[in-house]
Amino acid sequence: MRNKIKTIAFDADDTLWVNETYFQEAEQRFSVLLQDHLPAEIALKELFSTEMKNLPLYGYGIKGVMLSMIETVTRVTESKASMLLINNILEMGHDILNRPVELLEGVEETLDRLQGKYKLVMATKGDLLDQERKIKKSGIQHRFHHIEIMSNKQVENYAKLLQYLNCSPENFLMLGNSVKSDVLPVLELQAFAAHIPFMVTWLHEQHETKPEHPNFFELKTISEILHHLD
Amino acid sequence: MRNKIKTIAFDADDTLWVNETYFQEAEQRFSVLLQDHLPAEIALKELFSTEMKNLPLYGYGIKGVMLSMIETVTRVTESKASMLLINNILEMGHDILNRPVELLEGVEETLDRLQGKYKLVMATKGDLLDQERKIKKSGIQHRFHHIEIMSNKQVENYAKLLQYLNCSPENFLMLGNSVKSDVLPVLELQAFAAHIPFMVTWLHEQHETKPEHPNFFELKTISEILHHLD
Repeated sequence: MRNKIKTIAFDADDTLWVNETYFQEAEQRFSVLLQDHLPAEIALKELFSTEMKNLPLYGYGIKGVMLSMIETVTRVTESKASMLLINNILEMGHDILNRPVELLEGVEETLDRLQGKYKLVMATKGDLLDQERKIKKSGIQHRFHHIEIMSNKQVENYAKLLQYLNCSPENFLMLGNSVKSDVLPVLELQAFAAHIPFMVTWLHEQHETKPEHPNFFELKTISEILHHLD
Repeated sequence: MRNKIKTIAFDADDTLWVNETYFQEAEQRFSVLLQDHLPAEIALKELFSTEMKNLPLYGYGIKGVMLSMIETVTRVTESKASMLLINNILEMGHDILNRPVELLEGVEETLDRLQGKYKLVMATKGDLLDQERKIKKSGIQHRFHHIEIMSNKQVENYAKLLQYLNCSPENFLMLGNSVKSDVLPVLELQAFAAHIPFMVTWLHEQHETKPEHPNFFELKTISEILHHLD
């Protein structure tokens, strides 16, 4: 592989910086808000089912989560909850949107080592404004040749990206924390993909089995990529 | 001008298809929801001020409007409104998201006439998923060489687009319904811009005076562009 790769694309949320942790904290706070109405486990199940129902309409990102939280409160309490719960949800959302961006360990050093040798790309999914804000706050924007914000990460989205980059699949390597979004569609195009697990994975992104594919490899940390390339 | 233009970019919302009308209908319905609490005029003013406060955080699009409507309800009623109002707001949002895309008069014929002679681009602002959904529903996606979904329409966003298109300002014409977003930043780059007023304009996009600039012209309908080019 090491001789073929020319372009390396990085997922951003939970690959370059912390993200899911904030969402899971918000979910915990959500279940506490509803504790007078139903057990935490049920509250989280109800929220997840609202989120999945709304995903085609809202897409990814915190605004959709806030709206799904509000909808869940009105449904499970049959509109009898205090309006203060709604205020709490709006505040939680604003908190997340205002958080600083916390780069993961080894990210800057790894980008440093790769720069100049490879074309570096950021390929991230989600809300356009949210992602642009995080990219600006991250301070690592200038390290990337191209930043692609995708509404989804399916085979056709990657195919378009490769076409835009004028890059053949055998010269392309994608790194990310989601087997479902960062690995499987990339392997389907016969490009290379590396999985770097983050400490927590959103239920919707969970994928039980690791792919058996000659172009796939697993990393413990982002800096391990250096051993595979050099 | 007619000899210089090579690339024509079109705004989408309220230039190619109806948009603001749906938002203004939703605002009217919002003021009716609050009629037991405050006069319509005040309700709309409160909503606008919430939207402006949240714009840097939420960006453009219906999800941000829904969240701002909910926040306004909790604030102006001091959290004493019925939770049913919140349900109504969520339903209004879903209605807007599920609407078909209604092309404006003359759009298809005008694109037909321009195709092959110019590079046609769609340059639209807003929520990534919302805009992608509308583009798909519009059925005119295939007519464009490139579709750019921007988080904002300021000078730097257009400069990036021109760079991406590899197009000089003197070869670029932008058409749109917002003087603020589609005309002024484009003229600042010394490119060409045409204003096509839509029947309603969002307060935030309103701009009193028309620019005095040799590269600017005003159209009554989209098809009038043909007289300026041919």
